[in-house]
Amino acid sequence: MKNTFGSAVSLTIFGESHGPAIGAVLDGLAAGLPVDGALIAACMDRRRARGDGLSTSRTEPDQVEFVSGVLEGRTTGTPVTLLVRNTNTRSGDYAKTAALLRPGHADYTAWVKYEGFQDARGGGHFSGRITAASVAAGAICQQVLAGLGVQVYTHIARCAGISDAPLPGGDALPAEAPPGHFALIDPSREVPMQEAIRAAGAAGDSVGGVLETVITGLPAGVGEPFFDSVESELAHLMFAIPAVKGIEFGAGFRFADLTGSTANDAFRMGADGGVVTATNRNGGVNGGITNGMPVIFRTVVKPTPSIYKEQQTVDFPAKTDAQLVIHGRHDPCIVPRAAVVQNTLAAFGLLDLITVRYGTLAQKHGLPDR
Amino acid sequence: MKNTFGSAVSLTIFGESHGPAIGAVLDGLAAGLPVDGALIAACMDRRRARGDGLSTSRTEPDQVEFVSGVLEGRTTGTPVTLLVRNTNTRSGDYAKTAALLRPGHADYTAWVKYEGFQDARGGGHFSGRITAASVAAGAICQQVLAGLGVQVYTHIARCAGISDAPLPGGDALPAEAPPGHFALIDPSREVPMQEAIRAAGAAGDSVGGVLETVITGLPAGVGEPFFDSVESELAHLMFAIPAVKGIEFGAGFRFADLTGSTANDAFRMGADGGVVTATNRNGGVNGGITNGMPVIFRTVVKPTPSIYKEQQTVDFPAKTDAQLVIHGRHDPCIVPRAAVVQNTLAAFGLLDLITVRYGTLAQKHGLPDR
Amino acid sequence: MKNTFGSAVSLTIFGESHGPAIGAVLDGLAAGLPVDGALIAACMDRRRARGDGLSTSRTEPDQVEFVSGVLEGRTTGTPVTLLVRNTNTRSGDYAKTAALLRPGHADYTAWVKYEGFQDARGGGHFSGRITAASVAAGAICQQVLAGLGVQVYTHIARCAGISDAPLPGGDALPAEAPPGHFALIDPSREVPMQEAIRAAGAAGDSVGGVLETVITGLPAGVGEPFFDSVESELAHLMFAIPAVKGIEFGAGFRFADLTGSTANDAFRMGADGGVVTATNRNGGVNGGITNGMPVIFRTVVKPTPSIYKEQQTVDFPAKTDAQLVIHGRHDPCIVPRAAVVQNTLAAFGLLDLITVRYGTLAQKHGLPDR
Amino acid sequence: MKNTFGSAVSLTIFGESHGPAIGAVLDGLAAGLPVDGALIAACMDRRRARGDGLSTSRTEPDQVEFVSGVLEGRTTGTPVTLLVRNTNTRSGDYAKTAALLRPGHADYTAWVKYEGFQDARGGGHFSGRITAASVAAGAICQQVLAGLGVQVYTHIARCAGISDAPLPGGDALPAEAPPGHFALIDPSREVPMQEAIRAAGAAGDSVGGVLETVITGLPAGVGEPFFDSVESELAHLMFAIPAVKGIEFGAGFRFADLTGSTANDAFRMGADGGVVTATNRNGGVNGGITNGMPVIFRTVVKPTPSIYKEQQTVDFPAKTDAQLVIHGRHDPCIVPRAAVVQNTLAAFGLLDLITVRYGTLAQKHGLPDR
Repeated sequence: MKNTFGSAVSLTIFGESHGPAIGAVLDGLAAGLPVDGALIAACMDRRRARGDGLSTSRTEPDQVEFVSGVLEGRTTGTPVTLLVRNTNTRSGDYAKTAALLRPGHADYTAWVKYEGFQDARGGGHFSGRITAASVAAGAICQQVLAGLGVQVYTHIARCAGISDAPLPGGDALPAEAPPGHFALIDPSREVPMQEAIRAAGAAGDSVGGVLETVITGLPAGVGEPFFDSVESELAHLMFAIPAVKGIEFGAGFRFADLTGSTANDAFRMGADGGVVTATNRNGGVNGGITNGMPVIFRTVVKPTPSIYKEQQTVDFPAKTDAQLVIHGRHDPCIVPRAAVVQNTLAAFGLLDLITVRYGTLAQKHGLPDR
Repeated sequence: MKNTFGSAVSLTIFGESHGPAIGAVLDGLAAGLPVDGALIAACMDRRRARGDGLSTSRTEPDQVEFVSGVLEGRTTGTPVTLLVRNTNTRSGDYAKTAALLRPGHADYTAWVKYEGFQDARGGGHFSGRITAASVAAGAICQQVLAGLGVQVYTHIARCAGISDAPLPGGDALPAEAPPGHFALIDPSREVPMQEAIRAAGAAGDSVGGVLETVITGLPAGVGEPFFDSVESELAHLMFAIPAVKGIEFGAGFRFADLTGSTANDAFRMGADGGVVTATNRNGGVNGGITNGMPVIFRTVVKPTPSIYKEQQTVDFPAKTDAQLVIHGRHDPCIVPRAAVVQNTLAAFGLLDLITVRYGTLAQKHGLPDR
Repeated sequence: MKNTFGSAVSLTIFGESHGPAIGAVLDGLAAGLPVDGALIAACMDRRRARGDGLSTSRTEPDQVEFVSGVLEGRTTGTPVTLLVRNTNTRSGDYAKTAALLRPGHADYTAWVKYEGFQDARGGGHFSGRITAASVAAGAICQQVLAGLGVQVYTHIARCAGISDAPLPGGDALPAEAPPGHFALIDPSREVPMQEAIRAAGAAGDSVGGVLETVITGLPAGVGEPFFDSVESELAHLMFAIPAVKGIEFGAGFRFADLTGSTANDAFRMGADGGVVTATNRNGGVNGGITNGMPVIFRTVVKPTPSIYKEQQTVDFPAKTDAQLVIHGRHDPCIVPRAAVVQNTLAAFGLLDLITVRYGTLAQKHGLPDR
Repeated sequence: MKNTFGSAVSLTIFGESHGPAIGAVLDGLAAGLPVDGALIAACMDRRRARGDGLSTSRTEPDQVEFVSGVLEGRTTGTPVTLLVRNTNTRSGDYAKTAALLRPGHADYTAWVKYEGFQDARGGGHFSGRITAASVAAGAICQQVLAGLGVQVYTHIARCAGISDAPLPGGDALPAEAPPGHFALIDPSREVPMQEAIRAAGAAGDSVGGVLETVITGLPAGVGEPFFDSVESELAHLMFAIPAVKGIEFGAGFRFADLTGSTANDAFRMGADGGVVTATNRNGGVNGGITNGMPVIFRTVVKPTPSIYKEQQTVDFPAKTDAQLVIHGRHDPCIVPRAAVVQNTLAAFGLLDLITVRYGTLAQKHGLPDR
């Protein structure tokens, strides 16, 4: 199923950038779970563009409208459908360049796949705007996880050549950034990072970065050995974020140059009588299954393909070489806004895996002790 | 479905290291496709351990036995079931350390997940041996792809600190390594790589590496925008390979420090009237969909967790700290053997995506021109 | 996935009777397929209540609003999302009887399943109103099938004790009933049928019936041997229609008293050089796969459980025996309105099976000759 | 997935009648569940042919061989794979009639679907023999259900024109028939039923019948509103049994001529403080969800298509009209042997639905009180 993912909890996303709305169907939630609109709105706000030279000047309130599955602030147990209206669309910007394929974008692949019938306005179904729906749905999942003692946190590990401080060890998570600020462990990196992004934008260019997510409070035993490993499920979801081109768990690509004796995480008896690992190079996952340590992964987000510099391309379907100068409103960097997309999709993925093991009812009644 | 993956073509894998056999069910193939046993045997041979100080001394012929779905060398259209018998099992080796959790392995997570009822002999269902079944199934898929003009190639990009030569540009693939040799573009790297692996093994340690896969001959338009993107499907499958901890497409994690103008692949009209890209930093995928350029990805394979050096661990379920010295037969490096696993699973994943778009019959009758 | 069904084409339905809207997501359509709003509206009109003593006095225009996937009258290839607004809701009617379980309804099972958090207004997610969304989605599928030469027709085989004329033999289908009329082969049965329904309604009671569907123009070879047989897929879908309690294919339950020699359909060479069967007692399906003859099935629709006669029931969660008198607006018979629900869901099911075999592109470009 | 079904618990079946073995993969079971080989053997024995004029003279011991997922009599939590060897194959019988399509069989549809590459020996993948694998897998599910207090029972409601006694009311199930005997509530019907079957066989003909299944001990709240209703899931599975052409729940097709007041099941407070229904015309399911009363359904099984009487058919691919006289070994009636197939597939279906709601671990630790 092309736009639907998940086993016990499933997510379907739909919509086009310049259509009436984008939205999502989230199915498989227990009934009676609280849905806190303010928490969802806070997530939507983190994804929102601000027109401040860091993100596109297309700013929209992104209010989440529930069509089904939520009544008086609680889930009803049936599919939760939500819409986010598209209110600030200027398709004229795109008409000028409609025939010129934008490098790094899906213009060409969409044309071939949909034989010219795709909705090309504003990137259509390929627009980063579609992620707003997954943020709203994932924000609900994150609330459910919080009720089970599972916390999800994502920060900008690197952006525009500037790195954030590393994750603290242990189960303690950094504080969530205040509204309107970048998701950083070290807030002092924000101003230099923003200046580097603005400089790239001013040069008609764009920059990329790395997002890092950590999930704590997970019971051991979640996930499956092969095809439904924690890594498989999370990677599947993260590559659904436009611009993500890589993912690594724990030590990730650094494993290539480690040895077994420097890579293995020694098991030790923990303070509370449980089993822990002395290090966490495996990112909380052994054999595809959570081991009770924090799950840690990083993705790479490529630079926004929409840049104002002139580029070589092709006029299609005329099929001639051409030069492209992009107009319209674009982010010189989507990394800061993508953080909450990654965070909420990770919440969805883990809620699905937890539900497979413990059943739908456990979402509301809690995980058994075993 | 925990051990089943795929949409139009699906793969189910099963078995334990010391059970009677491991195997796979491959469903969704058209009828009448040739199944060349020699080609399958060649793939099995590449995965086979050789007892040469580079891989475990547990060597088995790994003959593939067809139980269903193949008649007189051709698919019948119904599920292809295959078994690989376990012939060389020495469970005694494992009994000695059964209560001591092996760091970096799934011993602990399996115990929690299966509440002590897992088959722990030789790693059970978590053994790398299970991948033999996916190699056999994927080798069939690779044959089907070859009939459609699609070629899949994987080499050891880096291992034990030694890198292979880079991929040649264009659609030309390096030659497949001769039987018994490492999958390398530059054969002169084999001896130093083997020496480095043997040195690690002699030190009671192990090493990791990076595998790189390239797929050529793909039509543009394969894959789906979000959850079934080419990257999502391939990443999902690659993380089903034990020890894989990261994956990146095209420029991958290098995108973090690129700019839009250095990251975008300019479109150009190709020699044959088709659209090509001047560079291929996106690894052949835009918006989750193939663009007709080679699909390129790399995975990182962590060092074999089974090492002979003494390690700290826990006696479980006794729940006391302990020291572990592993006996048994283990690879000081699984990267060379994992290459064919990655190659065949990639073949399976692409055959699935191609079948979604073109239908089951196209596997046999070819892809339409459009 | 609870509210999603289908392999190559998938349908997700959502909504509650008294929520803002009900709707559907239809995914897996090729791009460029015409979407004729007038044909959809005609299907919606057939399902619509008329407040004429035959159906509930809750009448709504049931306009279909496209949220995504359709642009300028054609599919874009991405998920088609549609909404039908709920405009005529009178929840007060239900508040009176909220604690009294309505016999034959899902009041009790919903309460247990959703632990009291279900949306109980107007039957919530269990209302027959939800089928409006599947009619709209299925109507699009029916148009796609028509473009492939496949026709779907459903009539009221029996209702309120009165039977319709039997299906004509061969590939010729009866004419579709004019707007506002019952789906009958013999229009002269309409008045007596309506009188019998009105008489039941006037007595505070309700009646059931049998719906019969025939699909012509199907190629042989569609469907799968076991779990995805044509019968399995269609039965799965038909039991998603509230009130359907049985389904039979071809001779159906009459097979119980036939012999092999009276049950088998002899194969014969047809006029056009193809293989046909002399009779069609197997309803066009052998071994789960279409044989090229018309696919024929019948469902039984139980009498509307909402009746005005006093009934014994339980006050829940007070858990005491009680008497119930239902108010509100209800159909004395849903069979006539259910005909188009069955017809459009059957169209969806067959489009899915056809797409599995021939691929997404075949929806637009036609089925190959083989 | 064509030969795989199920959500939380999944079943994959494979094999051909004259291949080396048929088998199944059952995934999604908790670890540590007892697997009683004697109970499985008893189910296999009920499906076994006896060569007694009632069933085919192809008699095989049908021993179940576990390949994975079972260790020392308990599940390991990983996929359970089982094989049943084909030991008594006489393909020569079939060669004589290979080109003549057998009416009522899948010969023609298989040829078209698989373009002549199907394994036609003994019906290949379409043989009723494949059901032996689902019996073994379902027998395990039945044991798991029994541990949860859920009982499944199937009897021959009608066969060869002779009806069994009706089901007793309430939760008490009839006793299972002794080995070698028909599944009948009233054992006195066995001899006349057998005589009628033998008479049909002696006349070169065959007979059909009706199977009725009842499941008791189910908690209320299992199943989903629309596409995953209890009826949808069970119907999907039952139509995977070759020769089943209809299914009805509770009053089934009799609903067509009932009224709401004679069809509704009144709710009443039960002796133990729970809610019950005074009658059970809805077969234990309201709105697709169990209501705690016994789930009851009936299927119709068509007469065995293989008869010895001469039949009209077509020589294919020669494409000429022809006469067919079938040799080989065939059952004059498969209804008695199909009873255990239906029973065990029903057990599988319910275990899947229960697991969706309560999670995998509940299979072993029991259902919570709520």
